[in-house]
Amino acid sequence: ELKLLQSTDITGGTFSLTLAGMFATAVLLFLGTGWVAKKWKLPVALAGVVALLATAYYWQAREVWLAAGQMPVIYRYIDWLITVPIQVLTLYFFIGAVARPPVGLFWRLLVVSVVMILARYMGEVDFMHPTLGFLIGIVGWLYILGEIYFGKLGEINSKSATETVQTGFFWLRLVVTVGWAIYPLCYFIASFAGGVDEGTLSIVYNLADFVNQILFGLIILFAAMKESASTR
Amino acid sequence: ELKLLQSTDITGGTFSLTLAGMFATAVLLFLGTGWVAKKWKLPVALAGVVALLATAYYWQAREVWLAAGQMPVIYRYIDWLITVPIQVLTLYFFIGAVARPPVGLFWRLLVVSVVMILARYMGEVDFMHPTLGFLIGIVGWLYILGEIYFGKLGEINSKSATETVQTGFFWLRLVVTVGWAIYPLCYFIASFAGGVDEGTLSIVYNLADFVNQILFGLIILFAAMKESASTR
Ligand SMILES: CC1=C(/C=C/C(C)=C/C=C/C(C)=C/C=O)C(C)(C)CCC1
Ligand SMILES: CC1=C(/C=C/C(C)=C/C=C/C(C)=C/C=O)C(C)(C)CCC1
Repeated sequence: ELKLLQSTDITGGTFSLTLAGMFATAVLLFLGTGWVAKKWKLPVALAGVVALLATAYYWQAREVWLAAGQMPVIYRYIDWLITVPIQVLTLYFFIGAVARPPVGLFWRLLVVSVVMILARYMGEVDFMHPTLGFLIGIVGWLYILGEIYFGKLGEINSKSATETVQTGFFWLRLVVTVGWAIYPLCYFIASFAGGVDEGTLSIVYNLADFVNQILFGLIILFAAMKESASTR
Repeated sequence: ELKLLQSTDITGGTFSLTLAGMFATAVLLFLGTGWVAKKWKLPVALAGVVALLATAYYWQAREVWLAAGQMPVIYRYIDWLITVPIQVLTLYFFIGAVARPPVGLFWRLLVVSVVMILARYMGEVDFMHPTLGFLIGIVGWLYILGEIYFGKLGEINSKSATETVQTGFFWLRLVVTVGWAIYPLCYFIASFAGGVDEGTLSIVYNLADFVNQILFGLIILFAAMKESASTR
């Protein structure tokens, strides 16, 4: 039977809102692959794929929330287990449009981002000590930050990238640094500083995904469009 | 009525995960057909079609698993009966972008890969002695391996292909050799070395499909993109 979204159900509202935002982003980015120069197509498409998978996740999340009044966190982890690695690799291909970063870095970023999310999941469902899972996650995140600030990607960016690419990369890094910090912060508050209820937690996660994934995609699209205009 | 995915249901989780991965791959490959030179469009599109069919399979598998707590193996065989032959023929068309392999080989690969899966299916459901089905399957697989290592495809690859195509073909062969070995291995362990429960078997099959079909598609896309960039 059909359950209506209640006017005061903020959590349900943010599920719907994020669904709409992700869908809009996916469509825009897929169209955008046709507007940018060849070398920018892959990063724009990957950001579009992330938004599309997030659309599927939020579609389902919205249904489950309306029907069951809850949204188990395992759904989120399955989504993140694919979208977060793709997003990290999008950084690699974004810089890859400027100069070829080493292939080994591709694999390290892939493995670290998968392990980071897996460890968090295992901690969450008690397959692993929660604090251990959290710590492994933090270490993985710091590794990724290290690579994009001080590693090869940061180096190519500061040495060979145009101003537009550098500005884009600046904002992408900001998303990975400040935007991503919301997730461990939520975990921290929920587990150590006394509980937060599930509905409130969902709101924060939804808004974090909204900002992080949509912003991430749009930054890439705009940088790629600007670059494509100036090289043609 | 709605059944939720339980946080500790790893089998259900890997159905969802593989579904997401297949969908992402299908979308990326279909977009990718627009980025590659004309002669690479067919192999990229075929790999995309395989990922799309697998998306449909995993969509259904996920539903069935959640509703019934099982996923009968016949669904898998129906999926494989189409996707495995297409994948084998994708190898043919991949090399076909370099030089025209004999048409007879096309038909042999098609027939052998269909027979291989059919025999396995008939063995599995006791329309045929299981060991006989297994052996026919193994023989079919060895025939395909023979063709890609020592037959015409291997020959064209080592004589006429560029370095990028050779690297791509090296990885594709690795998928067919090592990645595919998981399937008979599972069968072997499940039937001879004492039972494995259905949930665990599903996890292994899901991860095998995830790696084999996604990797296969991405190898083709990247080889084709690199070749297209260098020839124009
Ligand atoms: C909780 C937690 C983490 C979770 C990170 C997640 C879940 C990141 C998701 C990022 C997304 C969805 C980005 C989208 O743009 C960290 C940082 C590994 C550290 C350990 C604690
Ligand atoms: C069990 C079994 C086999 C099954 C092979 C299958 C089922 C292959 C599926 C491949 C797929 C799905 C590839 C995707 O990339 C063989 C090798 C015929 C040998 C006989 C035993």
